[in-house]
Amino acid sequence: MNNVYITRKERFNAAHRLFRPEFTDAENLRIFGKCSNPNWHGHNYTLWVTVKGEVCNSTGFVADLKELSLIINEKVIILLDHRNINLEVDFMSGKLASTENLTIAIWNKLDEPVKKLGASLHCVKVEETDNNMVEYFGPSK
Amino acid sequence: MNNVYITRKERFNAAHRLFRPEFTDAENLRIFGKCSNPNWHGHNYTLWVTVKGEVCNSTGFVADLKELSLIINEKVIILLDHRNINLEVDFMSGKLASTENLTIAIWNKLDEPVKKLGASLHCVKVEETDNNMVEYFGPSK
Amino acid sequence: MNNVYITRKERFNAAHRLFRPEFTDAENLRIFGKCSNPNWHGHNYTLWVTVKGEVCNSTGFVADLKELSLIINEKVIILLDHRNINLEVDFMSGKLASTENLTIAIWNKLDEPVKKLGASLHCVKVEETDNNMVEYFGPSK
Amino acid sequence: MNNVYITRKERFNAAHRLFRPEFTDAENLRIFGKCSNPNWHGHNYTLWVTVKGEVCNSTGFVADLKELSLIINEKVIILLDHRNINLEVDFMSGKLASTENLTIAIWNKLDEPVKKLGASLHCVKVEETDNNMVEYFGPSK
Amino acid sequence: MNNVYITRKERFNAAHRLFRPEFTDAENLRIFGKCSNPNWHGHNYTLWVTVKGEVCNSTGFVADLKELSLIINEKVIILLDHRNINLEVDFMSGKLASTENLTIAIWNKLDEPVKKLGASLHCVKVEETDNNMVEYFGPSK
Amino acid sequence: MNNVYITRKERFNAAHRLFRPEFTDAENLRIFGKCSNPNWHGHNYTLWVTVKGEVCNSTGFVADLKELSLIINEKVIILLDHRNINLEVDFMSGKLASTENLTIAIWNKLDEPVKKLGASLHCVKVEETDNNMVEYFGPSK
Repeated sequence: MNNVYITRKERFNAAHRLFRPEFTDAENLRIFGKCSNPNWHGHNYTLWVTVKGEVCNSTGFVADLKELSLIINEKVIILLDHRNINLEVDFMSGKLASTENLTIAIWNKLDEPVKKLGASLHCVKVEETDNNMVEYFGPSK
Repeated sequence: MNNVYITRKERFNAAHRLFRPEFTDAENLRIFGKCSNPNWHGHNYTLWVTVKGEVCNSTGFVADLKELSLIINEKVIILLDHRNINLEVDFMSGKLASTENLTIAIWNKLDEPVKKLGASLHCVKVEETDNNMVEYFGPSK
Repeated sequence: MNNVYITRKERFNAAHRLFRPEFTDAENLRIFGKCSNPNWHGHNYTLWVTVKGEVCNSTGFVADLKELSLIINEKVIILLDHRNINLEVDFMSGKLASTENLTIAIWNKLDEPVKKLGASLHCVKVEETDNNMVEYFGPSK
Repeated sequence: MNNVYITRKERFNAAHRLFRPEFTDAENLRIFGKCSNPNWHGHNYTLWVTVKGEVCNSTGFVADLKELSLIINEKVIILLDHRNINLEVDFMSGKLASTENLTIAIWNKLDEPVKKLGASLHCVKVEETDNNMVEYFGPSK
Repeated sequence: MNNVYITRKERFNAAHRLFRPEFTDAENLRIFGKCSNPNWHGHNYTLWVTVKGEVCNSTGFVADLKELSLIINEKVIILLDHRNINLEVDFMSGKLASTENLTIAIWNKLDEPVKKLGASLHCVKVEETDNNMVEYFGPSK
Repeated sequence: MNNVYITRKERFNAAHRLFRPEFTDAENLRIFGKCSNPNWHGHNYTLWVTVKGEVCNSTGFVADLKELSLIINEKVIILLDHRNINLEVDFMSGKLASTENLTIAIWNKLDEPVKKLGASLHCVKVEETDNNMVEYFGPSK
């Protein structure tokens, strides 16, 4: 098995807020700083999805990046782009809208669909700002 | 007069929504598309402020970029960063939260303070996403 | 009149070759270097289209950047993307496939359509590589 | 053994086409889309080569990045830059010109020469467009 | 254990010189090239610090990136920024000022402090120029 | 006359210090901050040179960007790269090593040589850090 890793980059713009509903505004401000602003703020998120597998002799591909892009858009981007992550994104419901939780949730949305491409999900990476990014490689085995 | 142009780049993350309150949600959706989402969305905005003037013999500067940065932060960034542009930014009150209006408003906040540096404001540029940007060079004379 | 300038960035990937058909391969190689390779080479081109106009009171826009993007895609990108500029692009027919000629030709394709947006074309910028770029501001008046 | 990883980034511009000669144009179009255009298209490829090893006490280097750059240029870049990958690159002869196959082939060109630097090849990464990239870490052991 | 990896990016500008004091200028020039210039040169260094750990149920964080940033600034950046790495940085004293040695030294400055965040240091990456970068994942175990 | 503008991007790494020799260290520190460090600091400078002219019918070029690159390297880059701007760069001798003065000095080095290409120098832009840049369009006429 000679694995090759292919990565597709996508983008979405969304609003969010870091807070716990059981905390007061003052407590949320102390823990989450300006990210707890009750009137929301937002980001241009960048998403990298890395898939691994063997190269197909017939196509020269691990997987068709256009198909991978379609899956990412259908399962993740249209649910997040120009949305409020706290209020409108079912797969983040009940979770703190941190980049860590968002990255794990995106992994869970993509893990099964990627298998249909004949490859396996290797890494989901989310960049929230130019200076902050999160990577998840799946649950430990 | 041999003008030299110096530019300082700053960043802020904010939520906004494009809509007119006198329109229905359907009308706003038709005109502004997904940017009219009532639950907000947001961006990592990048701001470039260009100032022009002659080079000071004593310092070798048109203006001290650290002082220019302080002015931009005090007059603009702390009012926008991690804020909701529609709800929380006084100098955008009553205006559509488009990048065009935001860019003009930032010019108006900076025009006078920059004069105290002994230079004059030349251009304000705001990038909303990697693909969309707006520049304003001030009112015509 | 207080002009504001808005810019939309688009991308296309294309093959080209710099050569004059009336020259020998040796002459083309001397003048155009490795860019004259008879078997073609290619680039990821980046295109910035800047449009100027007054801000509309009703929308807060100089022009709708989604409509500007549609025009650029319809008039330029679909004719260039994954194409051979020398062989397949009608509006470059009979011209040397230099970035200069390409930039002027893109201006000519966009000048009229942009007027329908109620704005006027200000600048077309094409980046051929990270180190080489060309700008055109239209014919002198 | 305390391995340190050093990476050199290089660039090349090339034309290519995705297709199988035994397929009809229609079949190639169905499988490879616009990437199968018989008149070619091209890209600004970016290449990252990562080498690992222990830091030399005498030089403070894992390997001299200038020497690594020379090797990459001699073994890979001059054979690819401003070339047609399908027609002119011996080490891609008979292979589909996919980024996956190109990345593996570059690994095979560099694996031995890198050993002469006293280090070992760790990863070859090729970016075809801003959104698509491929990594290869060598054959499984 | 489901590890998530978070990365913070910071920057510093510094002067340095590659040379061994026991060598002549000619020997240093032969081994280190223009990097051995006795009058120094410098770089805009970029630093990525990656930390791994489990996501905290209460905060949604592996670690607070603002706290991680404070640690990096206090332990590393203020000692390097606008400094001469050879002359003024205690933790590089007596070492060749190569990016490899700098990266290892930054790891050693951050390994303990990161543990106080309840996470563990995974990778330190330093980019010296756009084309040269170094990564260190810690001593082998 | 239909001017087209072409730009070449080059890079150099250098050390410098902002200070006036007639001032004390304390005065220099007050005016120039950490940029006055007597032990120097440095940057990865990026240089953009923009040249304007009409497109040549024979070549499709305003000027050959490879020739422009050669001129920039011969007249500017080899004098600055891996150098100390205060101590080793003749054309900066006696001047404060600010980015403003450096940008004007680079203009003066390139103005005449660019004319030999049959074009005229339009703009010199120098980026000192990702956040600070300077542009000069030549002396007023």
